[in-house]
Amino acid sequence: MSEPTPATRSIVVERTMPHPPEKIWRALTVSSLISEGLMQNDFEARAGATFTFRAKPMGDWNGIVHCEVTTFEPPRRLVYTWKGGSVQDAGYGFALDSVVEWTLTPVPGGTRVRMEHSGFGPQNDSAYAAMSGGWPGGLERLERVAAERA
Amino acid sequence: MSEPTPATRSIVVERTMPHPPEKIWRALTVSSLISEGLMQNDFEARAGATFTFRAKPMGDWNGIVHCEVTTFEPPRRLVYTWKGGSVQDAGYGFALDSVVEWTLTPVPGGTRVRMEHSGFGPQNDSAYAAMSGGWPGGLERLERVAAERA
Repeated sequence: MSEPTPATRSIVVERTMPHPPEKIWRALTVSSLISEGLMQNDFEARAGATFTFRAKPMGDWNGIVHCEVTTFEPPRRLVYTWKGGSVQDAGYGFALDSVVEWTLTPVPGGTRVRMEHSGFGPQNDSAYAAMSGGWPGGLERLERVAAERA
Repeated sequence: MSEPTPATRSIVVERTMPHPPEKIWRALTVSSLISEGLMQNDFEARAGATFTFRAKPMGDWNGIVHCEVTTFEPPRRLVYTWKGGSVQDAGYGFALDSVVEWTLTPVPGGTRVRMEHSGFGPQNDSAYAAMSGGWPGGLERLERVAAERA
């Protein structure tokens, strides 16, 4: 029998926002709004599109995240792959071969927003720690963009 | 409109184990096996049962986790509440009012085991950090117990 795969970890952040799903969907899928809430990007709003996020370069990593939209179901479900990092950064690993999944569920008074970032292997421990700390603020900014700009 | 709820975070760890779901289910639901793999406990294998885990006391917290089995569907899905901690421990908060959900899915050659520990609020940041680091080792021990003892 083959060796079992090592464990992978996910970061899940959930937040109820007092806005309809359509408004949050725009904040998640209009490139200029994504830049305000999450990160600089050249997102294209269709399944199959490839795009990049631009983060702050860190060590040997140029800060570019390579992504592909794998699910695009307005206004409920958005999934994209998320690959980045460098093998030179201890703990970051090349690549962080991961997936980000957004799920919007209508609830009384608003929308339950769930973000799951999955696929962190043992070699991605520092990325996991950094992004665990970063995603809650991302959802906070997303809510503000949805409220003010979408 | 009421204030939106703050974000909560979850820890998700997934691992494919080269054993059938029934074997892993035993490691998850037989009290003596749970003690070997995860923590000391007085688990009872039925929906509605209340039980405790006993962790190492920390600061003002006596180390007792109060739990209730809310879903018991052998050999696929086990959910229990997980309440513990003390308001005296900065960042831990009283209580850590959270939920642990185990999902076993048969895959070729074994079982995909998914553990989701959800409900960490902003007041539970240090518990989140500690348990993010702890759960992957828990699944590793669970696999060993399933292999050798279940």
